[in-house]
Amino acid sequence: MNFLEERIVKDGVVKEGNVLKVDSFLNHQMDIGLLDQMGAEFKRRFADRPVNKILTIEASGIGIACIAARHFNVPVVFAKKSQSINLDGDMYVAEVESFTHKCINHVIVAQKFLGPKDHVLIIDDFLANGCALQGLIQIVQSSGATVEGIGIAVEKGFQSGGRIIRNLGFRLESLAIVDGMNAETGEIRFRDQEKADTENTVCREKDICRSATLD
Amino acid sequence: MNFLEERIVKDGVVKEGNVLKVDSFLNHQMDIGLLDQMGAEFKRRFADRPVNKILTIEASGIGIACIAARHFNVPVVFAKKSQSINLDGDMYVAEVESFTHKCINHVIVAQKFLGPKDHVLIIDDFLANGCALQGLIQIVQSSGATVEGIGIAVEKGFQSGGRIIRNLGFRLESLAIVDGMNAETGEIRFRDQEKADTENTVCREKDICRSATLD
Repeated sequence: MNFLEERIVKDGVVKEGNVLKVDSFLNHQMDIGLLDQMGAEFKRRFADRPVNKILTIEASGIGIACIAARHFNVPVVFAKKSQSINLDGDMYVAEVESFTHKCINHVIVAQKFLGPKDHVLIIDDFLANGCALQGLIQIVQSSGATVEGIGIAVEKGFQSGGRIIRNLGFRLESLAIVDGMNAETGEIRFRDQEKADTENTVCREKDICRSATLD
Repeated sequence: MNFLEERIVKDGVVKEGNVLKVDSFLNHQMDIGLLDQMGAEFKRRFADRPVNKILTIEASGIGIACIAARHFNVPVVFAKKSQSINLDGDMYVAEVESFTHKCINHVIVAQKFLGPKDHVLIIDDFLANGCALQGLIQIVQSSGATVEGIGIAVEKGFQSGGRIIRNLGFRLESLAIVDGMNAETGEIRFRDQEKADTENTVCREKDICRSATLD
Protein backbone atom coordinates (compact mmCIF):
# COMPACT_ATOMS: atom_id res chain seq x y z
CA MET A 1 0.00 0.00 0.00
CA ASN A 2 1.20 3.51 -0.74
CA PHE A 3 0.88 6.47 1.67
CA LEU A 4 -2.59 7.48 0.44
CA GLU A 5 -3.99 3.94 0.56
CA GLU A 6 -2.64 3.60 4.10
CA ARG A 7 -4.33 6.85 5.10
CA ILE A 8 -7.63 5.77 3.53
CA VAL A 9 -7.51 2.51 5.51
CA LYS A 10 -6.70 4.46 8.70
CA ASP A 11 -9.15 7.38 8.43
CA GLY A 12 -11.57 6.63 5.59
CA VAL A 13 -15.08 5.46 6.42
CA VAL A 14 -17.07 3.06 4.24
CA LYS A 15 -20.82 3.71 4.16
CA GLU A 16 -23.74 1.89 2.57
CA GLY A 17 -24.18 2.42 -1.17
CA ASN A 18 -20.46 2.30 -2.04
CA VAL A 19 -19.79 5.62 -0.33
CA LEU A 20 -16.23 6.24 0.88
CA LYS A 21 -15.91 9.19 3.26
CA VAL A 22 -12.47 10.81 3.23
CA ASP A 23 -13.68 14.13 4.59
CA SER A 24 -11.38 14.16 7.62
CA PHE A 25 -8.23 14.51 5.50
CA LEU A 26 -9.08 15.12 1.85
CA ASN A 27 -12.27 16.95 0.93
CA HIS A 28 -13.72 18.88 3.86
CA GLN A 29 -10.85 18.97 6.35
CA MET A 30 -7.57 18.82 4.44
CA ASP A 31 -4.28 17.46 5.77
CA ILE A 32 -1.81 19.77 4.02
CA GLY A 33 1.17 17.47 4.68
CA LEU A 34 -0.67 14.66 2.92
CA LEU A 35 -1.63 16.96 0.02
CA ASP A 36 2.04 17.87 -0.28
CA GLN A 37 3.04 14.19 -0.50
CA MET A 38 0.37 13.74 -3.18
CA GLY A 39 1.72 16.74 -5.09
CA ALA A 40 5.23 15.26 -5.05
CA GLU A 41 3.87 11.92 -6.27
CA PHE A 42 1.97 13.56 -9.15
CA LYS A 43 5.18 15.36 -10.11
CA ARG A 44 7.07 12.05 -10.05
CA ARG A 45 4.47 10.33 -12.23
CA PHE A 46 4.18 13.17 -14.76
CA ALA A 47 7.85 14.21 -14.70
CA ASP A 48 8.17 13.46 -18.45
CA ARG A 49 5.27 15.74 -19.43
CA PRO A 50 5.74 19.45 -20.31
CA VAL A 51 2.98 20.70 -17.98
CA ASN A 52 2.57 24.49 -17.87
CA LYS A 53 -0.86 24.71 -16.22
CA ILE A 54 -2.97 22.71 -13.80
CA LEU A 55 -6.74 22.63 -14.29
CA THR A 56 -9.16 21.52 -11.59
CA ILE A 57 -12.80 22.03 -10.65
CA GLU A 58 -14.39 23.62 -7.63
CA ALA A 59 -14.51 22.95 -4.80
CA SER A 60 -12.57 20.03 -3.35
CA GLY A 61 -10.08 19.75 -6.22
CA ILE A 62 -8.70 23.23 -5.57
CA GLY A 63 -6.63 22.47 -2.47
CA ILE A 64 -5.01 19.39 -4.00
CA ALA A 65 -4.30 21.24 -7.26
CA CYS A 66 -2.76 24.29 -5.53
CA ILE A 67 -0.43 22.25 -3.35
CA ALA A 68 0.53 20.06 -6.34
CA ALA A 69 1.19 23.19 -8.43
CA ARG A 70 4.10 24.08 -6.11
CA HIS A 71 5.85 20.93 -7.32
CA PHE A 72 5.28 21.81 -10.99
CA ASN A 73 5.85 25.55 -10.54
CA VAL A 74 2.81 26.39 -12.69
CA PRO A 75 -0.45 28.33 -12.14
CA VAL A 76 -3.77 26.66 -11.35
CA VAL A 77 -7.07 27.38 -13.09
CA PHE A 78 -10.22 26.09 -11.48
CA ALA A 79 -13.40 25.49 -13.47
CA LYS A 80 -16.68 26.64 -12.02
CA LYS A 81 -19.77 24.47 -11.80
CA SER A 82 -23.24 25.75 -12.38
CA GLN A 83 -26.60 24.22 -13.08
CA SER A 84 -27.82 27.23 -15.00
CA ILE A 85 -25.68 29.88 -16.60
CA ASN A 86 -25.97 32.92 -18.75
CA LEU A 87 -23.82 32.03 -21.71
CA ASP A 88 -21.01 34.50 -22.05
CA GLY A 89 -18.86 34.63 -25.18
CA ASP A 90 -15.69 34.80 -23.12
CA MET A 91 -16.24 31.42 -21.49
CA TYR A 92 -15.66 27.82 -22.47
CA VAL A 93 -18.73 25.92 -21.32
CA ALA A 94 -19.05 22.14 -21.27
CA GLU A 95 -22.50 20.69 -20.77
CA VAL A 96 -22.25 17.52 -18.73
CA GLU A 97 -25.06 15.12 -18.00
CA SER A 98 -24.84 13.54 -14.59
CA PHE A 99 -25.88 9.90 -14.74
CA THR A 100 -26.12 9.73 -10.94
CA HIS A 101 -28.00 12.94 -10.29
CA LYS A 102 -30.07 12.97 -13.49
CA CYS A 103 -29.32 16.58 -14.27
CA ILE A 104 -27.30 18.79 -16.58
CA ASN A 105 -24.30 20.61 -15.14
CA HIS A 106 -22.17 23.25 -16.77
CA VAL A 107 -18.41 23.34 -16.34
CA ILE A 108 -17.05 26.80 -17.06
CA VAL A 109 -13.61 28.31 -17.66
CA ALA A 110 -12.80 31.81 -18.90
CA GLN A 111 -11.30 31.59 -22.38
CA LYS A 112 -8.39 33.87 -21.57
CA PHE A 113 -6.90 31.25 -19.22
CA LEU A 114 -6.62 28.34 -21.70
CA GLY A 115 -5.30 28.33 -25.26
CA PRO A 116 -3.37 26.33 -27.88
CA LYS A 117 -0.02 26.91 -26.18
CA ASP A 118 -1.14 25.30 -22.91
CA HIS A 119 -0.08 21.84 -21.77
CA VAL A 120 -2.53 20.92 -19.07
CA LEU A 121 -2.47 18.51 -16.17
CA ILE A 122 -6.01 17.96 -14.89
CA ILE A 123 -6.22 17.23 -11.15
CA ASP A 124 -9.23 16.25 -9.07
CA ASP A 125 -9.94 14.53 -5.78
CA PHE A 126 -12.38 11.79 -6.90
CA LEU A 127 -13.15 9.87 -10.05
CA ALA A 128 -16.27 7.70 -10.20
CA ASN A 129 -18.43 8.06 -13.30
CA GLY A 130 -16.18 10.84 -14.50
CA CYS A 131 -18.78 13.43 -15.54
CA ALA A 132 -16.85 16.40 -14.20
CA LEU A 133 -13.65 15.07 -15.71
CA GLN A 134 -15.28 14.64 -19.13
CA GLY A 135 -16.33 18.29 -18.94
CA LEU A 136 -12.79 19.40 -18.10
CA ILE A 137 -11.31 17.37 -20.99
CA GLN A 138 -13.91 18.83 -23.35
CA ILE A 139 -12.93 22.35 -22.28
CA VAL A 140 -9.18 21.76 -22.70
CA GLN A 141 -9.80 20.37 -26.17
CA SER A 142 -12.14 23.25 -27.14
CA SER A 143 -9.38 25.67 -26.22
CA GLY A 144 -6.82 23.95 -28.45
CA ALA A 145 -4.66 23.10 -25.44
CA THR A 146 -3.18 19.64 -24.84
CA VAL A 147 -4.22 17.28 -22.05
CA GLU A 148 -0.83 16.06 -20.82
CA GLY A 149 -2.33 13.90 -18.14
CA ILE A 150 -4.93 13.46 -15.45
CA GLY A 151 -4.04 13.04 -11.79
CA ILE A 152 -6.71 11.76 -9.40
CA ALA A 153 -6.46 11.16 -5.67
CA VAL A 154 -9.06 8.41 -5.28
CA GLU A 155 -10.62 6.46 -8.14
CA LYS A 156 -13.59 4.17 -7.67
CA GLY A 157 -12.35 1.37 -9.88
CA PHE A 158 -15.72 -0.40 -9.92
CA GLN A 159 -17.36 2.56 -11.65
CA SER A 160 -16.83 3.27 -15.31
CA GLY A 161 -15.12 6.69 -15.34
CA GLY A 162 -11.50 5.53 -15.17
CA ARG A 163 -11.89 2.79 -17.77
CA ILE A 164 -13.56 5.13 -20.27
CA ILE A 165 -10.88 7.81 -19.88
CA ARG A 166 -8.06 5.26 -20.26
CA ASN A 167 -9.79 3.70 -23.28
CA LEU A 168 -9.82 7.12 -24.88
CA GLY A 169 -6.03 7.12 -24.62
CA PHE A 170 -5.54 9.63 -21.84
CA ARG A 171 -2.71 9.15 -19.36
CA LEU A 172 -4.68 8.81 -16.12
CA GLU A 173 -2.87 8.29 -12.83
CA SER A 174 -4.91 7.65 -9.70
CA LEU A 175 -2.98 7.54 -6.43
CA ALA A 176 -5.47 5.03 -4.99
CA ILE A 177 -7.91 2.86 -6.94
CA VAL A 178 -10.63 1.32 -4.80
CA ASP A 179 -11.89 -1.88 -6.43
CA GLY A 180 -14.30 -2.85 -3.70
CA MET A 181 -15.68 -1.83 -0.32
CA ASN A 182 -17.69 -3.53 2.37
CA ALA A 183 -19.82 -1.25 4.54
CA GLU A 184 -20.39 -4.00 7.13
CA THR A 185 -16.76 -4.90 7.77
CA GLY A 186 -15.28 -1.53 6.69
CA GLU A 187 -12.89 -3.42 4.41
CA ILE A 188 -11.46 -1.57 1.39
CA ARG A 189 -9.84 -3.44 -1.50
CA PHE A 190 -7.30 -1.51 -3.59
CA ARG A 191 -6.15 -2.34 -7.10
CA ASP A 192 -2.56 -3.52 -7.19
CA GLN A 193 -1.34 -0.86 -9.60
CA GLU A 194 2.15 -2.27 -10.06
CA LYS A 195 0.65 -5.59 -11.10
CA ALA A 196 -1.95 -3.81 -13.24
CA ASP A 197 0.81 -1.81 -14.97
CA THR A 198 2.68 -5.00 -15.84
CA GLU A 199 -0.49 -6.63 -17.22
CA ASN A 200 -1.18 -3.55 -19.29
CA THR A 201 2.33 -3.66 -20.68
CA VAL A 202 2.01 -7.33 -21.65
CA CYS A 203 -1.36 -6.59 -23.22
CA ARG A 204 0.06 -3.67 -25.20
CA GLU A 205 3.02 -5.73 -26.38
CA LYS A 206 0.68 -8.44 -27.65
CA ASP A 207 -1.27 -5.82 -29.55
CA ILE A 208 1.92 -4.44 -31.07
CA CYS A 209 2.99 -7.95 -32.17
CA ARG A 210 -0.40 -8.64 -33.67
CA SER A 211 -0.43 -5.44 -35.67
CA ALA A 212 3.15 -6.09 -36.75
CA THR A 213 2.05 -9.49 -38.08
CA LEU A 214 -0.94 -7.97 -39.83
CA ASP A 215 1.31 -5.47 -41.57
CA MET B 1 2.56 49.57 -1.88
CA ASN B 2 3.05 45.97 -0.79
CA PHE B 3 3.47 43.01 -3.16
CA LEU B 4 -0.27 42.31 -3.44
CA GLU B 5 -1.21 45.96 -4.04
CA GLU B 6 1.46 46.10 -6.74
CA ARG B 7 0.03 42.99 -8.39
CA ILE B 8 -3.52 44.39 -8.24
CA VAL B 9 -2.35 47.58 -9.95
CA LYS B 10 -0.52 45.52 -12.59
CA ASP B 11 -3.11 42.83 -13.37
CA GLY B 12 -6.38 43.82 -11.71
CA VAL B 13 -9.16 45.29 -13.84
CA VAL B 14 -11.63 47.88 -12.60
CA LYS B 15 -15.15 47.55 -14.00
CA GLU B 16 -18.28 49.65 -13.66
CA GLY B 17 -20.21 49.20 -10.42
CA ASN B 18 -17.15 49.03 -8.16
CA VAL B 19 -16.15 45.63 -9.51
CA LEU B 20 -12.47 44.70 -9.21
CA LYS B 21 -11.47 41.68 -11.32
CA VAL B 22 -8.48 39.78 -9.97
CA ASP B 23 -9.32 36.54 -11.75
CA SER B 24 -6.04 36.28 -13.63
CA PHE B 25 -4.02 35.70 -10.44
CA LEU B 26 -6.29 35.21 -7.43
CA ASN B 27 -9.72 33.65 -7.88
CA HIS B 28 -10.05 31.82 -11.18
CA GLN B 29 -6.46 31.44 -12.34
CA MET B 30 -4.19 31.36 -9.29
CA ASP B 31 -0.54 32.42 -9.18
CA ILE B 32 0.82 29.95 -6.64
CA GLY B 33 4.00 31.97 -6.01
CA LEU B 34 1.85 34.96 -5.08
CA LEU B 35 -0.35 32.79 -2.84
CA ASP B 36 2.81 31.58 -1.13
CA GLN B 37 3.94 35.17 -0.47
CA MET B 38 0.49 35.90 0.95
CA GLY B 39 0.71 32.83 3.18
CA ALA B 40 4.07 34.00 4.55
CA GLU B 41 2.62 37.46 5.19
CA PHE B 42 -0.40 36.03 7.05
CA LYS B 43 2.01 33.99 9.18
CA ARG B 44 4.04 37.14 9.95
CA ARG B 45 0.94 39.11 10.94
CA PHE B 46 -0.57 36.35 13.10
CA ALA B 47 2.73 35.00 14.49
CA ASP B 48 1.61 35.80 18.06
CA ARG B 49 -1.61 33.78 17.77
CA PRO B 50 -1.84 30.07 18.69
CA VAL B 51 -3.55 29.00 15.46
CA ASN B 52 -4.21 25.25 15.13
CA LYS B 53 -6.71 25.29 12.25
CA ILE B 54 -7.52 27.42 9.22
CA LEU B 55 -11.16 27.83 8.19
CA THR B 56 -12.21 29.08 4.77
CA ILE B 57 -15.21 28.86 2.46
CA GLU B 58 -15.60 27.37 -0.98
CA ALA B 59 -14.53 27.96 -3.62
CA SER B 60 -11.96 30.70 -4.11
CA GLY B 61 -10.79 30.82 -0.49
CA ILE B 62 -9.56 27.24 -0.61
CA GLY B 63 -6.37 27.77 -2.62
CA ILE B 64 -5.23 30.73 -0.52
CA ALA B 65 -6.02 28.87 2.71
CA CYS B 66 -4.20 25.68 1.67
CA ILE B 67 -1.03 27.48 0.64
CA ALA B 68 -1.15 29.63 3.81
CA ALA B 69 -1.62 26.50 5.92
CA ARG B 70 1.86 25.31 4.94
CA HIS B 71 3.26 28.34 6.79
CA PHE B 72 1.21 27.57 9.91
CA ASN B 73 1.59 23.79 9.65
CA VAL B 74 -2.10 23.24 10.42
CA PRO B 75 -5.03 21.59 8.60
CA VAL B 76 -7.61 23.51 6.58
CA VAL B 77 -11.37 23.09 6.86
CA PHE B 78 -13.52 24.60 4.16
CA ALA B 79 -17.15 25.51 4.73
CA LYS B 80 -19.69 24.61 2.09
CA LYS B 81 -22.23 27.03 0.70
CA SER B 82 -25.75 26.06 -0.16
CA GLN B 83 -28.97 27.88 -0.80
CA SER B 84 -31.10 25.02 0.43
CA ILE B 85 -29.99 22.23 2.69
CA ASN B 86 -31.33 19.22 4.48
CA LEU B 87 -30.46 20.00 8.06
CA ASP B 88 -28.24 17.30 9.45
CA GLY B 89 -27.55 17.02 13.17
CA ASP B 90 -23.84 16.59 12.53
CA MET B 91 -23.42 19.98 10.88
CA TYR B 92 -22.97 23.54 12.06
CA VAL B 93 -25.17 25.66 9.83
CA ALA B 94 -25.13 29.47 9.74
CA GLU B 95 -27.96 31.18 7.94
CA VAL B 96 -26.66 34.28 6.20
CA GLU B 97 -28.74 36.89 4.46
CA SER B 98 -27.04 38.38 1.45
CA PHE B 99 -27.74 42.09 1.21
CA THR B 100 -26.44 42.19 -2.37
CA HIS B 101 -28.18 39.14 -3.76
CA LYS B 102 -31.36 39.37 -1.64
CA CYS B 103 -31.28 35.72 -0.68
CA ILE B 104 -30.53 33.41 2.21
CA ASN B 105 -27.37 31.31 2.05
CA HIS B 106 -26.29 28.53 4.34
CA VAL B 107 -22.69 28.12 5.44
CA ILE B 108 -22.04 24.56 6.56
CA VAL B 109 -19.24 22.79 8.47
CA ALA B 110 -19.28 19.25 9.87
CA GLN B 111 -19.28 19.41 13.66
CA LYS B 112 -16.49 16.88 14.04
CA PHE B 113 -13.98 19.32 12.52
CA LEU B 114 -14.45 22.26 14.94
CA GLY B 115 -14.66 22.21 18.73
CA PRO B 116 -13.77 24.08 21.94
CA LYS B 117 -10.08 23.19 21.69
CA ASP B 118 -9.67 24.84 18.28
CA HIS B 119 -7.94 28.18 17.69
CA VAL B 120 -9.05 29.25 14.27
CA LEU B 121 -7.65 31.60 11.66
CA ILE B 122 -10.33 32.43 9.10
CA ILE B 123 -8.99 33.09 5.60
CA ASP B 124 -10.84 34.30 2.51
CA ASP B 125 -10.05 36.02 -0.75
CA PHE B 126 -12.48 38.94 -0.66
CA LEU B 127 -14.27 41.01 1.98
CA ALA B 128 -17.01 43.43 0.92
CA ASN B 129 -20.23 43.30 2.91
CA GLY B 130 -18.88 40.36 4.84
CA CYS B 131 -21.88 38.03 4.73
CA ALA B 132 -19.86 34.86 4.21
CA LEU B 133 -17.40 35.95 6.90
CA GLN B 134 -20.21 36.58 9.38
CA GLY B 135 -21.40 33.03 8.73
CA LEU B 136 -17.92 31.61 9.34
CA ILE B 137 -17.55 33.55 12.61
CA GLN B 138 -20.98 32.37 13.74
CA ILE B 139 -19.95 28.75 13.08
CA VAL B 140 -16.64 29.03 14.96
CA GLN B 141 -18.47 30.53 17.93
CA SER B 142 -21.23 27.88 17.84
CA SER B 143 -18.54 25.21 18.05
CA GLY B 144 -16.95 26.75 21.14
CA ALA B 145 -13.70 27.36 19.24
CA THR B 146 -11.81 30.68 19.33
CA VAL B 147 -11.48 33.07 16.39
CA GLU B 148 -7.78 33.98 16.64
CA GLY B 149 -7.91 36.21 13.62
CA ILE B 150 -9.19 36.84 10.12
CA GLY B 151 -6.91 37.11 7.11
CA ILE B 152 -8.29 38.56 3.89
CA ALA B 153 -6.53 39.07 0.57
CA VAL B 154 -8.53 42.03 -0.77
CA GLU B 155 -10.92 44.15 1.29
CA LYS B 156 -13.25 46.68 -0.29
CA GLY B 157 -12.77 49.40 2.29
CA PHE B 158 -15.69 51.44 1.01
CA GLN B 159 -18.14 48.67 1.91
CA SER B 160 -19.16 47.97 5.46
CA GLY B 161 -17.89 44.41 6.09
CA GLY B 162 -14.43 45.27 7.41
CA ARG B 163 -15.58 48.09 9.69
CA ILE B 164 -18.29 45.93 11.29
CA ILE B 165 -15.91 43.03 11.93
CA ARG B 166 -13.26 45.34 13.45
CA ASN B 167 -15.91 47.11 15.55
CA LEU B 168 -16.86 43.71 16.96
CA GLY B 169 -13.29 43.41 18.23
CA PHE B 170 -11.95 40.81 15.81
CA ARG B 171 -8.35 40.99 14.65
CA LEU B 172 -8.83 41.46 10.91
CA GLU B 173 -5.83 41.76 8.61
CA SER B 174 -6.41 42.52 4.94
CA LEU B 175 -3.35 42.42 2.70
CA ALA B 176 -4.85 45.09 0.44
CA ILE B 177 -7.66 47.50 1.32
CA VAL B 178 -9.19 49.22 -1.71
CA ASP B 179 -10.70 52.55 -0.65
CA GLY B 180 -11.75 53.68 -4.10
CA MET B 181 -11.75 52.72 -7.76
CA ASN B 182 -12.37 54.54 -11.00
CA ALA B 183 -13.66 52.40 -13.88
CA GLU B 184 -12.93 55.15 -16.44
CA THR B 185 -9.28 55.73 -15.57
CA GLY B 186 -8.64 52.27 -14.06
CA GLU B 187 -7.20 53.98 -10.98
CA ILE B 188 -7.25 52.08 -7.67
CA ARG B 189 -6.75 53.85 -4.34
CA PHE B 190 -5.43 51.75 -1.44
CA ARG B 191 -5.70 52.56 2.25
CA ASP B 192 -2.34 53.43 3.76
CA GLN B 193 -2.39 50.72 6.41
CA GLU B 194 0.75 51.88 8.21
CA LYS B 195 -0.74 55.35 8.59
CA ALA B 196 -4.13 53.85 9.53
CA ASP B 197 -2.44 51.73 12.20
CA THR B 198 -0.78 54.81 13.70
CA GLU B 199 -4.05 56.72 13.71
CA ASN B 200 -5.76 53.80 15.40
CA THR B 201 -3.05 53.74 18.04
CA VAL B 202 -3.43 57.46 18.73
CA CYS B 203 -7.18 57.02 18.92
CA ARG B 204 -6.82 54.11 21.33
CA GLU B 205 -4.38 56.02 23.51
CA LYS B 206 -6.81 58.94 23.75
CA ASP B 207 -9.54 56.52 24.82
CA ILE B 208 -7.27 54.99 27.40
CA CYS B 209 -6.42 58.47 28.78
CA ARG B 210 -10.03 59.43 28.92
CA SER B 211 -11.08 56.31 30.78
CA ALA B 212 -8.13 56.75 33.13
CA THR B 213 -9.38 60.27 33.92
CA LEU B 214 -12.90 58.98 34.39
CA ASP B 215 -11.64 56.36 36.83
